[in-house]
Amino acid sequence: MSTGCVIGVDLGGTKLLAGAVDPELNVHHRATRAAHAADHHAVIDTVVSAVSEVRDAIEGGSGCVKAVGIGIPCLIDQRRGIAVMSTHLPLADVPFRDLVAERIGLPVFVDNDANAAMLAEWRFGAAREARDAALLTIGTGVGGGLVVGGALQRGSQGAGAELGHMVVQADGPRCNGNCPNRGCLEALVSGTALAREAQRLALQRPRSGLGRALAAGREISGPLVTELAHDSDPAAVDAVAAIGRWLGVGVANLVNMLNPDVVVIGGGVIAAGELLLEPAREVVMQRALSPSKQHARIVPARFGAESGMLGAATLALDELGAFA
Amino acid sequence: MSTGCVIGVDLGGTKLLAGAVDPELNVHHRATRAAHAADHHAVIDTVVSAVSEVRDAIEGGSGCVKAVGIGIPCLIDQRRGIAVMSTHLPLADVPFRDLVAERIGLPVFVDNDANAAMLAEWRFGAAREARDAALLTIGTGVGGGLVVGGALQRGSQGAGAELGHMVVQADGPRCNGNCPNRGCLEALVSGTALAREAQRLALQRPRSGLGRALAAGREISGPLVTELAHDSDPAAVDAVAAIGRWLGVGVANLVNMLNPDVVVIGGGVIAAGELLLEPAREVVMQRALSPSKQHARIVPARFGAESGMLGAATLALDELGAFA
Repeated sequence: MSTGCVIGVDLGGTKLLAGAVDPELNVHHRATRAAHAADHHAVIDTVVSAVSEVRDAIEGGSGCVKAVGIGIPCLIDQRRGIAVMSTHLPLADVPFRDLVAERIGLPVFVDNDANAAMLAEWRFGAAREARDAALLTIGTGVGGGLVVGGALQRGSQGAGAELGHMVVQADGPRCNGNCPNRGCLEALVSGTALAREAQRLALQRPRSGLGRALAAGREISGPLVTELAHDSDPAAVDAVAAIGRWLGVGVANLVNMLNPDVVVIGGGVIAAGELLLEPAREVVMQRALSPSKQHARIVPARFGAESGMLGAATLALDELGAFA
Repeated sequence: MSTGCVIGVDLGGTKLLAGAVDPELNVHHRATRAAHAADHHAVIDTVVSAVSEVRDAIEGGSGCVKAVGIGIPCLIDQRRGIAVMSTHLPLADVPFRDLVAERIGLPVFVDNDANAAMLAEWRFGAAREARDAALLTIGTGVGGGLVVGGALQRGSQGAGAELGHMVVQADGPRCNGNCPNRGCLEALVSGTALAREAQRLALQRPRSGLGRALAAGREISGPLVTELAHDSDPAAVDAVAAIGRWLGVGVANLVNMLNPDVVVIGGGVIAAGELLLEPAREVVMQRALSPSKQHARIVPARFGAESGMLGAATLALDELGAFA
């Protein structure tokens, strides 16, 4: 398939990244969009617009797009290509695959966005050659992916690996919109939770960098907190560490339950790097069982913010038999 | 193999059950022992004594014992047959398989006791034909077993499926002896936790059956609470329901993470039956995501207190190729 490529689309809770990817996993053109939309028609318009931009850029050159893979932050009925339920986008029982395929006239394959990220990291990235691995993508929400016994696992209906909706504090804060639960990992370690913790510390510590940013009227967002933490603002470092310790409780659970070779942390919040992972690792060593806790590596995603897009492309390449 | 059978041994945290089992899963003779022991030599003496009793009973008749399977409440290095670490028995880096095999002169196979129970329930019992299933055995502690993607899964080192050491309340009670964690399922739903909750309610409600039992100097044990609950003592019913609701939080996690066809509840505490399972199911419906929560059946182990013994026998029969 040296003459062709696929388009991978990572449809996040807040933004979309599409890229033309060849079978050697080189990315030839990228397009981004805001993902937020009023209804599923608008979501599909956004996907089609980004795919068209990438396709025009590639096919205007020498390339030829063979298929599209899409990762969606959603419970997916993969056999039928239906977006069953999303906690972040207006998608409920939408025949996503067929609606997009009709519009663009190419084969389309869909999967949960975090399953796609797990696929890319497992095949080519931080979980390469693992027999057992878990991935958490920490962004607007917290997605999960699982490799168990040497295979990507989606559960009996394809709705599994919702690792972000693992309760670690039963009486903890309410989770997001469509999740009825409390004290889920998503409620405690998402970008939203990081911003909330930072807001609390900014009010408590007005002389810190976080406190001054708040006083200056800046929005206390995940990226701002991460930036200030990398600049060694103690309040921002503490906010990231608090999230890291909750992450550690969730990772300890994964380590005890799955005895994985590696736990990969991706998504926007992993921009905090070791400031997030070091407190998480400490909690895993305090809470998890031997020998699993000594065995499991806890590492950042190799492909960073592009895991999902590359994984969606990998899904399409797999379906085309490009790796066969 | 109509002329032979194997011996399955379920070595629990407090008691041992051994049985001679044929390839049709009929049990021909049973032996029980107290499992508690001062050191691993005494544990092995107990196993050998129970196996010898069963073997003598069988071989005195027409049978012939071909192998022994043993389920141990322990992290197991299955390839080398080593009992790595137990939260309930004095076993640390003990070459259990070889020590027992030397003593009895038969092939011995070992696995975690809850993995063995999962194997029996999956092959012949409540999880039969499931592609994805989880099992919790609730006794002195809480053991776990996993079937993911149509295979029994033990993790990359064979130390996985420690579902009892999943944290559901990060600041909850300390877990048992060798587990360094807090708020594990085991700390909240084991027989020990049931007795503790019942003790608390007995003091609060002295006129209840539980309260009167305490006043009469009876030990408030799991079996007593279960018996009183079946006799409709409201305090005992409430104690079982409180444990059932915590169980529901853990099962909701399993449902979200694995999208299983079935979650099987075994061990001594399942003697409470629907008094335990009904509150658990309610919490799963409140906390877990669709469509997984509608899909997963939450059921008692078919083989009750014998799942572990039958599973250990199944392990040995598998290794002998009796089902091939």
